[in-house]
Amino acid sequence: MEEKNIMTYETVSLDDENSQLVIIDQTRLPYETKMLYLKTQKEIWTAIYLLQVRGAPAIGVAAAIGIYLAAKEIKADNYDDFYKAFKEAKDYLASARPTAVNLFWALDRMEKVVLDNADKSVEEIVKLLHDEAVAIKEEDIWVCKSIGEYGLSLVEPGIGILTHCNAGQLATAKYGTALAPIHLGQERGYNFKVFADETRPLLQGARLTAYELHSAGVDVTLICDNMASIVMKNGWVQAVFVGCDRVAANGDAANKIGTSGVAILAKHYGIPFYVCAPTSTIDMECATGDDIHIEQRPAEEVTEMWYKERMAPKGVKVYNPAFDVTDHDLITAIITEYGIAKPPYSESLKEIFAKKEAAKKNK
Amino acid sequence: MEEKNIMTYETVSLDDENSQLVIIDQTRLPYETKMLYLKTQKEIWTAIYLLQVRGAPAIGVAAAIGIYLAAKEIKADNYDDFYKAFKEAKDYLASARPTAVNLFWALDRMEKVVLDNADKSVEEIVKLLHDEAVAIKEEDIWVCKSIGEYGLSLVEPGIGILTHCNAGQLATAKYGTALAPIHLGQERGYNFKVFADETRPLLQGARLTAYELHSAGVDVTLICDNMASIVMKNGWVQAVFVGCDRVAANGDAANKIGTSGVAILAKHYGIPFYVCAPTSTIDMECATGDDIHIEQRPAEEVTEMWYKERMAPKGVKVYNPAFDVTDHDLITAIITEYGIAKPPYSESLKEIFAKKEAAKKNK
Repeated sequence: MEEKNIMTYETVSLDDENSQLVIIDQTRLPYETKMLYLKTQKEIWTAIYLLQVRGAPAIGVAAAIGIYLAAKEIKADNYDDFYKAFKEAKDYLASARPTAVNLFWALDRMEKVVLDNADKSVEEIVKLLHDEAVAIKEEDIWVCKSIGEYGLSLVEPGIGILTHCNAGQLATAKYGTALAPIHLGQERGYNFKVFADETRPLLQGARLTAYELHSAGVDVTLICDNMASIVMKNGWVQAVFVGCDRVAANGDAANKIGTSGVAILAKHYGIPFYVCAPTSTIDMECATGDDIHIEQRPAEEVTEMWYKERMAPKGVKVYNPAFDVTDHDLITAIITEYGIAKPPYSESLKEIFAKKEAAKKNK
Repeated sequence: MEEKNIMTYETVSLDDENSQLVIIDQTRLPYETKMLYLKTQKEIWTAIYLLQVRGAPAIGVAAAIGIYLAAKEIKADNYDDFYKAFKEAKDYLASARPTAVNLFWALDRMEKVVLDNADKSVEEIVKLLHDEAVAIKEEDIWVCKSIGEYGLSLVEPGIGILTHCNAGQLATAKYGTALAPIHLGQERGYNFKVFADETRPLLQGARLTAYELHSAGVDVTLICDNMASIVMKNGWVQAVFVGCDRVAANGDAANKIGTSGVAILAKHYGIPFYVCAPTSTIDMECATGDDIHIEQRPAEEVTEMWYKERMAPKGVKVYNPAFDVTDHDLITAIITEYGIAKPPYSESLKEIFAKKEAAKKNK
């Protein structure tokens, strides 16, 4: 393997001995593989806010490790004081990314450990929080691998695949979600031809997906977002795989800005459009995409970030939503770790959760 | 007017006294309004190739002035020698942008002056070439204004308009094509709300359209190309106006990369999609869009240009087509200086040319 193969690094990990969360600074890729060693809650909050760690599953793992590290630092000799401080730390971390349902999911799961063990000592609870954070990470690896297998079952070797943003190893503990079928396919000689949308304004496709896939030996071609149409028209794409940040109960899916446009193009050209969604990103309490809050980000990401010089006139208005919602009727299937949901999603997603419950009981 | 209002500059002009073509260097906008004074054919060729002058009509005017300047320099005392040198200069300029039909159109028109006046002295022919170049520029201003009037007749005051790339004053001698209805509407208090796609990789939307419209006092909001879908979904767009580089006889239209994607989105959301096309860009000899050659441009435009640091891994493949072709069935109307063509274009475009012929005869 070459020295800077990103697959040899861990995206998110716990250095328990030094009480720090270790992540790859994804805003520095692909030109620098810089590890960040985050000790304070403010550092962890900032890393999530600045997308230094990004991708729903990786954020969840980072938040779990982060809240464990916070718990470790709490000076309390009784449960009530401990829980109060834990809750403050949890609310603080939760405020870093309002649209990242995985952030809340991981923090809620960690809180449940605290609530379920009110009878135990603070020391014992902290130990259980450690185990839960480790479990969340290990489960993420299993989830991604399972999504990869289901995704791979939908496609033939040698096809062209288009993806948007980065829902890859860099977005998870391993394999990724949308890129999991590609990584597993690569291990099995499927020879996919992948097109990576560069994904403005943060360029996760250029910096992360193109880097991750090129580094893993996959045949990947980088395109600007506005080239997806011609690539599809050329007949070079037989499937689209994207990740998601949040799926509503009716199958509407919030994902990186531009995803809904790709879905509309795919429908126009008759290409199947697959959303890879760990069940942790499916929010059955959220009825439709209309209920999903769309985060607005700073204008400078569009006008200045990355550039040598500002690329737009001073004072011009900018609209910079982080996400958009892809209507369920544009989605061919939603691929989860418990199987493939097909329309109508209001029924099939319930079946997925029933399978998940059954699997839990059989454990 | 503020000092750097781009509307106070001429996009393309002839400085006959100093035998030079004067253009705004559009690759330096919006952070520097730098004029280029081009004397040699190589300088003019390079300016066209590097998109320092860009936009089909502006390229036509620049080529006409360029070939006039070349003719002025020819040392020949007889017609045959003059024509041979003229033809060499013409072929050289024509090679700068293989997809720009206006380049050929303007050069052919200039050549016709030479061919039609073989009985005249070289000095007289050069004088006629001067007059033809000036006429091409003046006609361009008339063409743009006429397209603006027809475009304005299709929309209501106060609506939202989305545009892609820059088919504005900076692409023509005045007003622009796709932006002509907006500039005329602005003069008449129409209060349009314009969304400008930034238009990767060359960012003509951010650098030129946002600059030009902001400078002209228009309410303009800059978006990344992949945000067109959410802006339309939000209900903020009631019409799309784009320019074109070449329209085929069946109405298929080649324009800046990404235009076909915008057209597909507009169709999905039920928004009219208008192509503003001077008849000089309509090529009735070209049957369909399949016959339009798509120019491929360097990978570095996607991976490196404008950036402080390279934004993609070294060695990754890049696909960077300059244009795409929008199918005629995605186009609501083609707006020309001789009226509005509606489907079926194979008939309506012929009618447009019949009107053009009639107008010529009535002159």
